[in-house]
Order: sequence, then C-alpha cells, then structure tokens
Amino acid sequence: MKLNELGEFGFIERISPDHIPRPNHVVRGIGDDCAVIRTGDPDLYLITTDLLIEGIHFTRKTTDPRRLGRKSISVNLSDIAAMGGVPRDAFIAIAVPENLDVEFLDALYEGIHERTQEFQVNILGGDTTSSLRDFMISITLTGTCPDSQVLFRNTARPGDHIFLTGPVGDSAAGLDILLNRPEYDLTGRNSLIHAHLDPYPHIEQGRWIAQSGYAHAMIDVSDGVSADLGHICDESSVGCTINSHALPLSDELREYCHALKKDPLDFALSGGEDYVLLCTGDPALLDSAHSSHMELFDIGIIEESRERFIRNSHGMRYPFQSRGWDHFSGSP
Amino acid sequence: MKLNELGEFGFIERISPDHIPRPNHVVRGIGDDCAVIRTGDPDLYLITTDLLIEGIHFTRKTTDPRRLGRKSISVNLSDIAAMGGVPRDAFIAIAVPENLDVEFLDALYEGIHERTQEFQVNILGGDTTSSLRDFMISITLTGTCPDSQVLFRNTARPGDHIFLTGPVGDSAAGLDILLNRPEYDLTGRNSLIHAHLDPYPHIEQGRWIAQSGYAHAMIDVSDGVSADLGHICDESSVGCTINSHALPLSDELREYCHALKKDPLDFALSGGEDYVLLCTGDPALLDSAHSSHMELFDIGIIEESRERFIRNSHGMRYPFQSRGWDHFSGSP
Repeated sequence: MKLNELGEFGFIERISPDHIPRPNHVVRGIGDDCAVIRTGDPDLYLITTDLLIEGIHFTRKTTDPRRLGRKSISVNLSDIAAMGGVPRDAFIAIAVPENLDVEFLDALYEGIHERTQEFQVNILGGDTTSSLRDFMISITLTGTCPDSQVLFRNTARPGDHIFLTGPVGDSAAGLDILLNRPEYDLTGRNSLIHAHLDPYPHIEQGRWIAQSGYAHAMIDVSDGVSADLGHICDESSVGCTINSHALPLSDELREYCHALKKDPLDFALSGGEDYVLLCTGDPALLDSAHSSHMELFDIGIIEESRERFIRNSHGMRYPFQSRGWDHFSGSP
Repeated sequence: MKLNELGEFGFIERISPDHIPRPNHVVRGIGDDCAVIRTGDPDLYLITTDLLIEGIHFTRKTTDPRRLGRKSISVNLSDIAAMGGVPRDAFIAIAVPENLDVEFLDALYEGIHERTQEFQVNILGGDTTSSLRDFMISITLTGTCPDSQVLFRNTARPGDHIFLTGPVGDSAAGLDILLNRPEYDLTGRNSLIHAHLDPYPHIEQGRWIAQSGYAHAMIDVSDGVSADLGHICDESSVGCTINSHALPLSDELREYCHALKKDPLDFALSGGEDYVLLCTGDPALLDSAHSSHMELFDIGIIEESRERFIRNSHGMRYPFQSRGWDHFSGSP
C-alpha cells in the first residue's frame, strides 16, 4: 500500500501505539501539541518537534529566508504556547542541498535568531547536513509550565465556551494569493501574505490563559479551526457548536473574499497555519481577558453529544466535518 | 558563496556563536555530543538531535528498512553513551516521499521499536510529513546522567591515556564493500557489512566509564578516530600520539585489506560510523575495565603540545591531520 492511500493520520495511528517502557516521568506522550515530562523541577517540562520541508511547507519562490527562519521557530513556539508554557531551549537540524547559497542560510539563521532572542530561547544544539534535493528544517523546542496550569487537548468539558485568541483565515488567504492570485492588489494584500509567511506565536496569550484558571483545554490553530477543534472533540470525547457569525475575521480577509466572491468561512474554518490559540473553558474567561486588554473571541460551545455543528446567523444549525490538511493524501 | 566551498564545519562555526539568552540552567550548549541541562533533578538532562538523509547517510539500495530503523535510533543512543548517560525519551520526525510503501515504513518502525525497547526508551512524540523526493529521519533523544559523572570533549588532560571500547574501521570497510566491491565474498563480508548497517550503541560501556571515576573526556567515533580524537584535542587544547599498532582491528578488516592490498589503518583512522566510544583518562582505567570483563584498548596518549602524531610499530612518530567526512564538500 502507498502512503497517500493510507493518509497521514492513518499512518500516525499505525505507528504510534504506546511505546513507553519507562512511564514514571511521562505525563503525556504522543497526541498533544507537546510531550509533557516530570523532572525534579516544580514545573513540568514540554517538548515539541516540527519538520518544515521545501515544496510541502514552503517554497523559496514565495518566501524570503529571513521570514522562513522566523516562521520555522514560530511554529514550534506556537506548540509551547498551546500547552500554556514558556519556551526555553531549541535544537535546530537542517538538511541543505548543495546548490544553496551561504547567504540564504545566513539570512535564515538571522530570522531564527531574531525570534529566539525575542522569546529568550537558547539555541543549544542541532545537526547540519547536506541533502540531495530537498531543503528541510527540523526544530525541537523545549519549554516549561507549572504543573497545575498545563492545558491539554483531552480535557474539554460539555458546557465550555470555545475561544480564539485572534482572527483566522488570513494565513490561508495569503497562501492563496501567493500561489493563485499574484495579481491581487487591494490594500489587504500585504497583511494577508504577512499572516502566512510570518506568523507571530501567541506565547503571551497562552501563558495568560493557563494562569487564569478558567480554561480547560487548549490547542494551536495549525491545521485549521475545524480540524483543530476536531482534535479537541476527539480527544475529549465531546461535540461542539461553532457560531459562524462569531468567528473573528479580519477586514482584509473580508475584502479579499468579497473581491473573489468566495466565502470567508471556508478560509476561517479550514485554512490552517493561523497559529492563534483555541481554548475551551468557563465563559468568565472572556470578561477576564477583556479587563486585561487581551483579545479573545467566544466562537461557540462544547456539547456533550459528540456531534459537530455550525450555527449560522439565522440560528440554523448544520453538521460539519473536521477538515484539515493531510500531508500524505495532499488534500483536506 | 556556495555551501560546498565553505564546508560543514565552516558553516557550523558561522551559525553557532552563542545564542544563550537564558544561561542559568545550561551546562553545555553546542559543541559536544549532547547539550547538557540542569533541571530540578539531581541528574543532569542530556539532549541530542541527528538527521539521517537518504542519498547522504543511507540508500535504500544497500540497507533494509528494519536495520535502517535500528541504526537511526542507535546513532542517537551513541551520543547519549558518549556523555556517560542513560537514554530516556525519543522524538521521531520523518519526511516521506509519496512513492514509499507503507510496508517499508512499518519495517522501519519495527527496527526503531526493537532498539527503543531494548534500551527502555520511550517514544513520546515527533512529526510525520511528506517530502517531494528525499526520505529523511530526524530523531531527538534525551537522557540523564549524575552531575559529577558527565564526560565532555573539552576536559582531556596531558598525560591521559586514550582508550577505545571496540574495534574501528569495520563500518567503513562494510560501506566500501556495499558501494564498490559487491563481489567480495570472503568470510568476513557479512560481519563488515553488519558493522556498517546495524551498529550497536555502547550505552553500557559509556555508563561504566563514567561511573569508574578514571575518565576525563569522551566522544563517540562517528566521524572516524582521527577526526573525533581531533575534536577532543581541539576542545581540550591538547595534542596526542596514537600508537598505530595498538589500534584494535578485527580479523575481518585485516582479511579484507589483505585481499585488496589496502592499509587497514586508513579505515581505522578515517573511516567513521564505528559508534564505539573514545575516552581519555587515568591508565588505571584499563585494568579496571579488564577486571570487569569490559573490552577496552589503550591506543595512545594525550600530549601537552597541541601537535598530533602517529607512532608506528618501529617507534617512528609522524604528524597526522584529523580527517573526517565533511557533509558539504563531500570529501574528507
């Protein structure tokens, strides 16, 4: 059987049954944004690994090396944010085709260093090697979070409200412009492209939410709201209703969709790579966030029944599939 | 400038000046087999990352997926062994071209699981994605070691004896057979090929050496004895003399070199991928190892002057260059 017939999630299920011969220090293994480990510290230790592959996750045609460097560390930072953690140490492995200019790599590392400095992350190791053709960046990032504050995917509760820390869909629209509409030139163009090429990780928001005591579950929006909320529903054995009119959409996304006669909800729900946080918890979280001047949007509710619904502005509810990008089948 | 003009080590020096804004918990960053971190534990925490790239580190033509799986985790285990550590948690990221069979990946993971089970290593995470063409495995492995026992590269002392925990050169000869002499059919063939495709990490030896109290510095032989001893000399600001007749050579390597009229010292000194350990320390380590029935070979001495010599069986000393594989220039 070929991998694209099985699909990414099918393959992960096939290979990831528990291999934990030494369980004592393990709080969480595969199945969340980070693994969570107990050390002698009062804080728990978080570890996450992400791969970025040229031609799959980025192309040198549409990004510059400095933004690519920033994004490669940001997607890992976002995983630490999704647990409520503070990032600590990075390990950066790159495989480089021989024809790549040293100047490209210098700029890539400049971008990486900008973001690691900004979030006070140490670079403590890695590996550097050549590749035949593909350019790849593999980053492992550690972080810490107080024991009682770590937020998982599998702890959402019926009745929880669902919150987002920022607008969704911009990144997917930016990618759409880069790939399919280079001629698009309305005012929002740069902002949408920026959302795709240079996302900013919500570390501060993640810490705030984890410390608030009001949140029960959290994930970052990397696969898209419907897929990532789907992960929370799967892991927590719950369902959900999203209020489509409550989804935070930027003016730039609305303008783009208006110009193209597209539905912004498609970008907002299935887009991916927004790297905002999605959490569930007590409705009091919203007021608390607003009095702390933190952007937070209440987009729906966790249901006891395991079904998933969207409710539109007329109050009509219809079921939806959790769609996200499948890296092997090459389709949502 | 192209990367192959700068070379791998030139590039690493270019990108790895200290980026350690949060130094308090860091015992060692870039520049050793593992990063070393202080947690609340009495033991120090070790982290290492290795990339294996198809066409650079392996080809599907010469290995089978099960051995490739075992080797990919073994090269990381060897880095933990080189610090004197016990391995703990693995994070496995793979990038897979679409045309790869699921059965190949099943066998790869079977090999990984065999070795992680054997060394009681948890698999706690990773990432799985497609690639356009190259097949890549990136493994991050953690381990622990009591604070007073961790062995670094930069702590060799003049007068130290230099020890190896096993024979060297077999892996390079095995690779030579696979690539250049498929017709070679003397008795040692399988043993040499096995040394290359399925090395066994010296975790037990590394722990024993670290606990002995006699050792001062350690590294694993991945780039070749001359290059890896060269790393110890560079980092410790010392020199060395290797007694060429004392290098442990297998009968199979001698037989291969005799048949091909090659000098086994070339394989032994510059070969690489042996994954035995090289340590320096008090000469008493040798007797102590032998009374514990641990294989250990005394191959030379650390010198105060920073020069590097080989002494042959006639007592003649001549200088040598530390040669190892450079992943970018594609040459030693």
